[in-house]
Amino acid sequence: MDNIKIIVAGPRGRMGSEALRLIERTEHFELVAAVDIKFAGKRVSDIEGLPKFDAPVYDDIEQCFQEVHADVLIDLTTPEVGKKHTELAVEYGVRPVVGTTGFNENELEALRKRAEEKGIGVIIAPNFAVGAILMMKFAQMAAKYFPDVEIIEQHHDQKLDAPSGTAIKTAEMIQKVRESKGQGHPDEQETIVGSRGGNMDGMRIHSVRLPGLVAHQEVLFGGEGQTLTIRHDSINRVSFMSGVQLAVETVMKLDLLVYGLENIME
Amino acid sequence: MDNIKIIVAGPRGRMGSEALRLIERTEHFELVAAVDIKFAGKRVSDIEGLPKFDAPVYDDIEQCFQEVHADVLIDLTTPEVGKKHTELAVEYGVRPVVGTTGFNENELEALRKRAEEKGIGVIIAPNFAVGAILMMKFAQMAAKYFPDVEIIEQHHDQKLDAPSGTAIKTAEMIQKVRESKGQGHPDEQETIVGSRGGNMDGMRIHSVRLPGLVAHQEVLFGGEGQTLTIRHDSINRVSFMSGVQLAVETVMKLDLLVYGLENIME
Amino acid sequence: MDNIKIIVAGPRGRMGSEALRLIERTEHFELVAAVDIKFAGKRVSDIEGLPKFDAPVYDDIEQCFQEVHADVLIDLTTPEVGKKHTELAVEYGVRPVVGTTGFNENELEALRKRAEEKGIGVIIAPNFAVGAILMMKFAQMAAKYFPDVEIIEQHHDQKLDAPSGTAIKTAEMIQKVRESKGQGHPDEQETIVGSRGGNMDGMRIHSVRLPGLVAHQEVLFGGEGQTLTIRHDSINRVSFMSGVQLAVETVMKLDLLVYGLENIME
Amino acid sequence: MDNIKIIVAGPRGRMGSEALRLIERTEHFELVAAVDIKFAGKRVSDIEGLPKFDAPVYDDIEQCFQEVHADVLIDLTTPEVGKKHTELAVEYGVRPVVGTTGFNENELEALRKRAEEKGIGVIIAPNFAVGAILMMKFAQMAAKYFPDVEIIEQHHDQKLDAPSGTAIKTAEMIQKVRESKGQGHPDEQETIVGSRGGNMDGMRIHSVRLPGLVAHQEVLFGGEGQTLTIRHDSINRVSFMSGVQLAVETVMKLDLLVYGLENIME
Repeated sequence: MDNIKIIVAGPRGRMGSEALRLIERTEHFELVAAVDIKFAGKRVSDIEGLPKFDAPVYDDIEQCFQEVHADVLIDLTTPEVGKKHTELAVEYGVRPVVGTTGFNENELEALRKRAEEKGIGVIIAPNFAVGAILMMKFAQMAAKYFPDVEIIEQHHDQKLDAPSGTAIKTAEMIQKVRESKGQGHPDEQETIVGSRGGNMDGMRIHSVRLPGLVAHQEVLFGGEGQTLTIRHDSINRVSFMSGVQLAVETVMKLDLLVYGLENIME
Repeated sequence: MDNIKIIVAGPRGRMGSEALRLIERTEHFELVAAVDIKFAGKRVSDIEGLPKFDAPVYDDIEQCFQEVHADVLIDLTTPEVGKKHTELAVEYGVRPVVGTTGFNENELEALRKRAEEKGIGVIIAPNFAVGAILMMKFAQMAAKYFPDVEIIEQHHDQKLDAPSGTAIKTAEMIQKVRESKGQGHPDEQETIVGSRGGNMDGMRIHSVRLPGLVAHQEVLFGGEGQTLTIRHDSINRVSFMSGVQLAVETVMKLDLLVYGLENIME
Repeated sequence: MDNIKIIVAGPRGRMGSEALRLIERTEHFELVAAVDIKFAGKRVSDIEGLPKFDAPVYDDIEQCFQEVHADVLIDLTTPEVGKKHTELAVEYGVRPVVGTTGFNENELEALRKRAEEKGIGVIIAPNFAVGAILMMKFAQMAAKYFPDVEIIEQHHDQKLDAPSGTAIKTAEMIQKVRESKGQGHPDEQETIVGSRGGNMDGMRIHSVRLPGLVAHQEVLFGGEGQTLTIRHDSINRVSFMSGVQLAVETVMKLDLLVYGLENIME
Repeated sequence: MDNIKIIVAGPRGRMGSEALRLIERTEHFELVAAVDIKFAGKRVSDIEGLPKFDAPVYDDIEQCFQEVHADVLIDLTTPEVGKKHTELAVEYGVRPVVGTTGFNENELEALRKRAEEKGIGVIIAPNFAVGAILMMKFAQMAAKYFPDVEIIEQHHDQKLDAPSGTAIKTAEMIQKVRESKGQGHPDEQETIVGSRGGNMDGMRIHSVRLPGLVAHQEVLFGGEGQTLTIRHDSINRVSFMSGVQLAVETVMKLDLLVYGLENIME
């Protein structure tokens, strides 16, 4: 297999620098350039704290596409910039793998059409956490057989919102296959209000916040005489990189746009 | 929807009596007869410890098929008897749901052919535990993305074999999609022999045996910065009844033989 | 060691019949009589469903104490009856092990005084679940070092009250050693009300209710970079019997009244 | 309360730099000097990557003790250096909190005697992880009531030894209160060798190694109808700092040497 030639936009961010380390440790991945608003004209190896790649840094992505032959653009910049980069990449025949959620419905539709015209793969993934996506997928499958479900999500105590976005997303995915139903005994009483958790269509969601936790979620299903539990524990952003790797490998085989990593996972 | 008319063979066994209770609490299920080597000519309600069904008991299953109109036979007898019952049920146009594993390859093939000729559904399920089947299915799916896997199965301390059959079955299902690989550090050392568990193609299996446990299994997948865990807890045989229910409902829509509950679950 | 001679009051109840089975399987325990409102004049072996003890059944506990020499009374009747039995046992020099909570403060004080006068051990234990008591004890000890704590209790979906009595008791025991404090981020927001659980002095309590669960509780403590979890799983009333056994063995060495099993456990 | 004036030896190490951060965020802690083989004559704020303390750096610890008034020395250097530092600190009336295990029996005895003569507190703690110490303490307490115990320890897959030191230490502490006994069924059979784990006096130890794990341990106790589980999860070295903080606060009230953090925890 030939190496996959990759441009990384946003190499100094937390995700971006991890993407460089992913490329460094993956045999058939090759960094051919980086796009950064600073350091244009330098090499990646000149930037402190990054892996020692001898690849050029550009601040103008079009110039980069013109001067460097690449297969894939990994864009880990901001939503606004990421959107522009993605559109340009398609025009230049470079397959984008983008984490951004900056596209509205119309923009997404236009991009989808353009990708098909050009016969080029595009992957837009708001969530690169393969383990979290599998957890949600399995939860949706299990809910067909076990409609009684509670979600316990656990995060560090600096998190502001409860429940977490992943918990809500999980419940929404379950909703698509589960008929709305109350859970627990119809006459149950809370002697301390809130103890039965948040109620989403009958499903109960519990948010635990403690120092020492990072990002964890458990989905519990109960049936007569048995329970089934699906749990994901994530301790840092490196966990996103298996999703980026999967997306890079898959985008090479696509000739259309895919939104959401779950749609390239069986 | 019309009621599904059911004959239960083996109503006094642990599974059989649970099947009667399943029929009792399921609105569109109806018990029309039972087959038992004792109590022929009595009613089910005459047998102590069973639900009060006014359905006749037969010791001759052919006579039962001739005299009682039924849609489905739930057979929870022995392998040898179950095999004979299943074959006869197909001839009489009654759809069998069987837990037995008494069929050899040739017998199964013959039965499969006969079911298709008659255009009748047959479900043979060595394992009716829906939760355990989902656990194995999810484990197989996850292993594609996370090839590092360890299985911890936990059972009561009267269990004789280690690892459990379910643990071995899980590992075998994972083997089909996972390339053989070593796990752990290549130079790891056991200072107490056995502490790294049983080795099956690189996967490690750990068997916990304690009083107070019933039947539990955890499949752990590890990737950079994350772990994914699938756990099934079973505390009694009632847990099999959701599988029996699923099989009864599904067999009504089939016109062929299905072996293994996993093949009627999406 | 001589056998401990035991009278069981309430032998046909769920706890009482388990107590008989405990005596049956414990070498140095001996059943010398049973007290039951029915079956007076019969033997225990005459009562269906109970172990085959050849011990007499009384309906009058005073007569029983007069005719049968016993060391210990295990009382598993109702609060009202249990109270009377306990008081009589002390007078007759039989050491009571009682599960009842039927005593008010004054009655308890009077009984305590009488036990000391007679120099006789008495154990009154509202909770015989050794594992649950240890969980609460450990939780209290851990809270000194980890004041951030959340409790997740999980029960079958037929339970009416939330949180469980054990969860509230656990939180109360922690309160004695933990200064009241808020938990989570001061600005945290619930987008689904109740998701952060019940608030008891800053501690959060979450009540999960699902079919397939029995009685489970997890106490989670969080500190910088670490979490400590204490979990108790109980699947049936047999679990109380280790507490009854402990109480019977301990009451023989006591010459005063002890309230609460936790006070005879180090 | 007056501030506790602290010298940190080894400020650039992983533990040492965390200790500086601990002092920075703890109101009544004050850094008065650091001891480092490099950077003598500079300020701590001159050393890259460390908190901006305006405290002097010494390479000669005796000069440091002479010129700077301090209450406590936190020593996080090597065993050999730490031993010398500790002995000198006692002579200069500075209370040492030391992680080192560099003392042999005789040296420890001499130091113990000297601390008592001087009436000064000394804490030597091979393990500063408060959560892990509590886990071990609770496990020892629980084993009195539940002699059936299995340990599951889980670490990242780069760990070389199995079982972990903490698992062995836990089993040793349990051994002191538990009579040696076999576990599991006497006739149990391993169909895959090692699946029942490592055998230490009948207790079974299971070592899980996966990427994505950090350092985790579960101690499971089983009794009739119930299980009790104690679990510790540690995700980084910051977790040691609560132990260092506890030791610093306690050493101020001591007038003798304490070995092992467990001995200052109730």
